[in-house]
Amino acid sequence: MMSPTTSETGRRDLTSFPHVVIIGGGFAGVACARGLTNKDVRVTIVDKHNFHTFLPLLYQVATAGLEPADVAYPIRTIFGHADNIGFRHGRVRAVEQASNRVVLEDDSVITYDHLVVATGATAAFFDIPGASRYAMPLYSLADARRLRNRLLLALESADVGADSGSRALNFVVVGGGPTGVETSGAIADLIRTVIRRDGLRLDEELTRVLLVDLAPRLLTAFPESASAYAKKELESLGVEIQFARSVVEVEEHAIRFADGERLETAAVIWAAGVTSGKLAHAVQTTLGPGGRVRVTPDLRLVGSANVWAIGDAAAVPDEEKFCPQLAPVAIQSGRHCADQIVHAMNDEPTQAFHYRNKGIMATIGRHAAVAKLPRGGVIKGTAGWVAWLALHLWYLVGFRNKLRVMINWTWRYFDWPSGPRLIVADAETAE
Amino acid sequence: MMSPTTSETGRRDLTSFPHVVIIGGGFAGVACARGLTNKDVRVTIVDKHNFHTFLPLLYQVATAGLEPADVAYPIRTIFGHADNIGFRHGRVRAVEQASNRVVLEDDSVITYDHLVVATGATAAFFDIPGASRYAMPLYSLADARRLRNRLLLALESADVGADSGSRALNFVVVGGGPTGVETSGAIADLIRTVIRRDGLRLDEELTRVLLVDLAPRLLTAFPESASAYAKKELESLGVEIQFARSVVEVEEHAIRFADGERLETAAVIWAAGVTSGKLAHAVQTTLGPGGRVRVTPDLRLVGSANVWAIGDAAAVPDEEKFCPQLAPVAIQSGRHCADQIVHAMNDEPTQAFHYRNKGIMATIGRHAAVAKLPRGGVIKGTAGWVAWLALHLWYLVGFRNKLRVMINWTWRYFDWPSGPRLIVADAETAE
Repeated sequence: MMSPTTSETGRRDLTSFPHVVIIGGGFAGVACARGLTNKDVRVTIVDKHNFHTFLPLLYQVATAGLEPADVAYPIRTIFGHADNIGFRHGRVRAVEQASNRVVLEDDSVITYDHLVVATGATAAFFDIPGASRYAMPLYSLADARRLRNRLLLALESADVGADSGSRALNFVVVGGGPTGVETSGAIADLIRTVIRRDGLRLDEELTRVLLVDLAPRLLTAFPESASAYAKKELESLGVEIQFARSVVEVEEHAIRFADGERLETAAVIWAAGVTSGKLAHAVQTTLGPGGRVRVTPDLRLVGSANVWAIGDAAAVPDEEKFCPQLAPVAIQSGRHCADQIVHAMNDEPTQAFHYRNKGIMATIGRHAAVAKLPRGGVIKGTAGWVAWLALHLWYLVGFRNKLRVMINWTWRYFDWPSGPRLIVADAETAE
Repeated sequence: MMSPTTSETGRRDLTSFPHVVIIGGGFAGVACARGLTNKDVRVTIVDKHNFHTFLPLLYQVATAGLEPADVAYPIRTIFGHADNIGFRHGRVRAVEQASNRVVLEDDSVITYDHLVVATGATAAFFDIPGASRYAMPLYSLADARRLRNRLLLALESADVGADSGSRALNFVVVGGGPTGVETSGAIADLIRTVIRRDGLRLDEELTRVLLVDLAPRLLTAFPESASAYAKKELESLGVEIQFARSVVEVEEHAIRFADGERLETAAVIWAAGVTSGKLAHAVQTTLGPGGRVRVTPDLRLVGSANVWAIGDAAAVPDEEKFCPQLAPVAIQSGRHCADQIVHAMNDEPTQAFHYRNKGIMATIGRHAAVAKLPRGGVIKGTAGWVAWLALHLWYLVGFRNKLRVMINWTWRYFDWPSGPRLIVADAETAE
């Protein structure tokens, strides 16, 4: 390979290097770009946001435990030191594989030598009427802010001191996986805090947090003992849990179940599952399981030599079946993809990806968590929570974010009056 | 007076107490409510936001130095411990003084024994065409977020790496008072940071920050030595300063001056002056100077026995003329008003308000500030900055906010890669 040349500015002259375009600045895309830092390639990350979002903590932003800036980090800042990693703010409209071009919504064109599809996942609404319109998913910072405003405004308006009088306030969380468990616990926590700390006078009889799922238990990816523990802990926080319940329609202020029950709602939070976004359809005609892009074991798009897919967007083969859509899979597949691109450019053979299982975990309220270890063991309670906390702090991008989140968590652990319960409207007009 | 009775819940029975309604949860309204805490009155603060905003630091939110939650604090949380201070989230539509009623936009009605108008100020556009529509003021958290998004998006789109090629990027700040000086310095700082830290490739020749004013010098409320110092410091940060320039029109992407020049702009920031809001007109037919409510020396609305006006909304008499619209005036008048309401309820004589001048200050960039002391002395440079910093930390509500802002400032002082340069769109659609 050529050794890097140096221009007058002291920067390497990158123009002769192959161009790798990564669509998506999530865990997978950032891990891939990190793997390509200081390699003999020119990298451009394209994302519709100028920041990387730490999705596992979005539910804390939605429930006013953390601020948006605590879980997001500008992509340019992550790679500010790396002269071969660039960023392009924009939305991708089309991928033209025949001519190796990506077209953005502003009609600008980026040509690539290698393309990495790291577009992540989005909420799956399973064609349930009204769900995509009225239920609130939690897959972006904007989702989290929207849900937070909805929760806080609903609580404000239900204050029995208001002349409107008391009325029912039902928050329904659909889906009993980690997101549903974490969100419902955090909403229950938020309600207790606003009552005790902010002096909001809610009718506690009329204020309900409901977690519903089709399955007969919570956290089906965990052993049964973890499910039972999560159920007991959530119930002690005041969350009502209903299994084997099927949602047939979501209305603006209500939810309808298959058994005919219709419940007035202040918010329906959608944590029922994910699918891949529009862009996956743009790069592959026949997608794999869960609407994910089918890839070969070395993470190349089936049938392509220079298009790769990683993270939640890809159906990554794992021994008998496929990897789950988890942050560790995204990070590991991103790193692996970077190495394979270097191999491919050097005409070396590529290697198959193997997922190293790091276990899974979920928090329940403020001081408890469950973790399933790689060999199948389970950690519960405060020990699980400490492990959860340490791991999430470790993976947060940026020392300042780690510090701020640690301060926030310390606050909440000791139950000091909590901070950022601000309602900042999305479409606020002039003051 | 009756001594407070205690109900079964351990709370005082407040229903027999007179009701004080405070419109506005800014410096003045919060200071007034603090003065009434644990007095024999029932207080309701009405505000369209559920949080108190620390306005002196809004320009830092607008320039991505601080986060919204750093400068805002939920009003309920401020008074969570005080059982006689309530909060009502809503906008006031009308004040009916004949019947002692406040009507909110949701048609609900609040009756009062005493009413305190603490509605603050809003940007004055002086009927300059396009100004209210296209120029960006800085008087609310929403204003600050909107300006931040505009600045960051403009910088992103001007990256010379983008295929659009380089183009002029003019940020024009109108008004050379403290807000204009602080904002223009912070924008210049932001631009240097994104270039140096984030690797954004801007054409520095084409990127300008312009501060324009009608007056012949900056900071006219300060001595001339302070004005000269501020000018020198701003220019060293790269801000161009133009005096005796009169704006005749603001367009969507341009500004026009009286001398005929038309300049393309990425943003026009409006720091040219303030006036009182709509509500002042609702309580007084003929307003005082600057559109402010005329009050008697004890802060009562001229002609009223139980309506009071404080802070920026009021033309508070001060010896020969009127108090300036500053945070210390707001805080002091709020406290004074609380005492006078207690006097009035006890049929005691009320006292005239006297402003205790604490001086004024403004920061310039990250490490410099000017302060004018009450006796006319001036502090400049790093000493001024340390004083500015200490004072602002002291007045921030909430220990957590103080801690977070201190961390942010420490970061910036040592020039570590800065954090929250996130573009979170106001009207973001689903992901």
